[in-house]
Amino acid sequence: MPRSERSVRVAVDAMGGDYGPEPIIEGCIQALDERNFDLILVGDRDAILSYLPEYYLERVQIVESSDVIDMHDQATNALRRKDSSIYKAVELVREGEADAVVSAGHSGATMTLATLRIGRLPHISKPALATLMPNINNAKTLVLDVGAVVDCKARNLYEFGAMGEVYAQEVMGLASPRVGLLANGEEASKGNELTKEAFPLLQKIPGFKGNVEGRDIFNGSVDVVVTDGFTGNILLKTSEGVADAIFTMMRQEIRKSLPAKIGALLMKKKVFARLKKQVDYAEYGGAPLLGIDGCAIVSHGSSNAKAIKNAIFQAINFSRSDVNRKIEELLVRNNGQKS
Amino acid sequence: MPRSERSVRVAVDAMGGDYGPEPIIEGCIQALDERNFDLILVGDRDAILSYLPEYYLERVQIVESSDVIDMHDQATNALRRKDSSIYKAVELVREGEADAVVSAGHSGATMTLATLRIGRLPHISKPALATLMPNINNAKTLVLDVGAVVDCKARNLYEFGAMGEVYAQEVMGLASPRVGLLANGEEASKGNELTKEAFPLLQKIPGFKGNVEGRDIFNGSVDVVVTDGFTGNILLKTSEGVADAIFTMMRQEIRKSLPAKIGALLMKKKVFARLKKQVDYAEYGGAPLLGIDGCAIVSHGSSNAKAIKNAIFQAINFSRSDVNRKIEELLVRNNGQKS
Repeated sequence: MPRSERSVRVAVDAMGGDYGPEPIIEGCIQALDERNFDLILVGDRDAILSYLPEYYLERVQIVESSDVIDMHDQATNALRRKDSSIYKAVELVREGEADAVVSAGHSGATMTLATLRIGRLPHISKPALATLMPNINNAKTLVLDVGAVVDCKARNLYEFGAMGEVYAQEVMGLASPRVGLLANGEEASKGNELTKEAFPLLQKIPGFKGNVEGRDIFNGSVDVVVTDGFTGNILLKTSEGVADAIFTMMRQEIRKSLPAKIGALLMKKKVFARLKKQVDYAEYGGAPLLGIDGCAIVSHGSSNAKAIKNAIFQAINFSRSDVNRKIEELLVRNNGQKS
Repeated sequence: MPRSERSVRVAVDAMGGDYGPEPIIEGCIQALDERNFDLILVGDRDAILSYLPEYYLERVQIVESSDVIDMHDQATNALRRKDSSIYKAVELVREGEADAVVSAGHSGATMTLATLRIGRLPHISKPALATLMPNINNAKTLVLDVGAVVDCKARNLYEFGAMGEVYAQEVMGLASPRVGLLANGEEASKGNELTKEAFPLLQKIPGFKGNVEGRDIFNGSVDVVVTDGFTGNILLKTSEGVADAIFTMMRQEIRKSLPAKIGALLMKKKVFARLKKQVDYAEYGGAPLLGIDGCAIVSHGSSNAKAIKNAIFQAINFSRSDVNRKIEELLVRNNGQKS
């Protein structure tokens, strides 16, 4: 049966996340109501059953686990904690019992386990965490890496570019995605030692458009932005910080004036609600870890039900696509080998 | 006569900037109207005189120059272009005829000339460009470096921290500035190879609080944020990009609805105008190049008159302070030498 026809099996870590199982299971229920897929919930059976209405039980498989890796644990311990919900959820993908894993738990643990237990694609040296950011064209820009590989080599950036281009084609549905390398200026001569070394490697990628700047993430001039995991993490948190600060400053000013309060009320539903939707990470779900031989979606620790639902949809779309095979094909083609 | 008593002499590159001499000279006039200082305008005499009312002539010295380094020129050529306005303006500081230079021209050329012709402070290996960013406490966060040193060593980050702390004390007037090192997480164990090596060095700086994240620039949790020039440049342009995108999206949504249009009108003066003021770089003037044996303020190429006026005020405040001597004192003290 072709991959797109059979039902995708998604393993969800029911115990990970800052708010416990409730928003996660609520998100799973919303996903089950909207899409057709097989759900495997991994965690404490009693906790899961207390939030899951009986009605859904026949569509859900529960895999019991007794341990949870929390935010204060070291990611390096994850490999030894074999009874943890995230370990067992990843193991289901490794053993072919699930197509994808979704977790809002310890992101370092999820990435470590997915990389080491599911394994990397043959031509990928290090997987990358990819996230979607909103742009003014009412579309999304894919940014990678945002935290998986803090100290990158040029080869890593090249692979990130290849993975980003293929993900944009196969999962985001863009025919000819434009790929940019994040630097301190648009000219080819700009960049640090790392990006200058990566630039000629990235020129092997069909959609590579050269260097881009921070503002290009949001103005829609490219579809994929490649950067190292240190810079990517900082730009992600800087963006969240700027958006939060603008909305906080706006609230501070609105509070000071009655006309402004009335004005804000008039704008609330039409403008602020839509704007919030555009900048709300819950709309995007989670970040796929690209470069592993399977599918892992890393969700924000503070994910609400909607974020979990959208992360599951990402897992379904990813698993129905040919993204991993096409990544390998591009890398093999670029290496000058026959595929 | 103590430094703070005599009039500060500011050399302004009248020819640099995207819009030619007009906004620059208009900014100088505004500054002359508000503060007492000696102005030296460097550039084409006829162009300067066409924008400068006679009334100001007796307070202004004009130094003629015949060449302008434009945005498309290489910074490395700046040293040979001895008739350029920026070369001559920097030279006035080198020769002790001015205390400070302000330029909205080619920033690479300004930094190169200021570093090589004015010279570095004895204990600084590389100067850093420092910029102010708004935070939600209605205060400003100093971020450095934002583009002078693209490939940093740990020693550079340490010096940036020392310079940032002293600038915050001496020029921004903060008694005990809090200094953070930008990383991909707050824990001391986070960071890339560079920041991990810089962390123990930065612990010698009195106000050092450890690692901070991108969002901490805007939430007021620290006063000074230290980073390398590559990351700093990207975070600066990312921040501008996010702010622009939010305002663009807001305008797009407002246009679609009549109540929202009325609401926006009611909010315009009170909220948007104040918000714009908080995020408008023109309010901040320019970026001081810290670590040179003098004062150079690097202004945005698209500076309007207000930005130039504020850059001149920065130059005056910097020159009246003891910031350079105190930077040296801190570094010498940390080196365990007698000052």
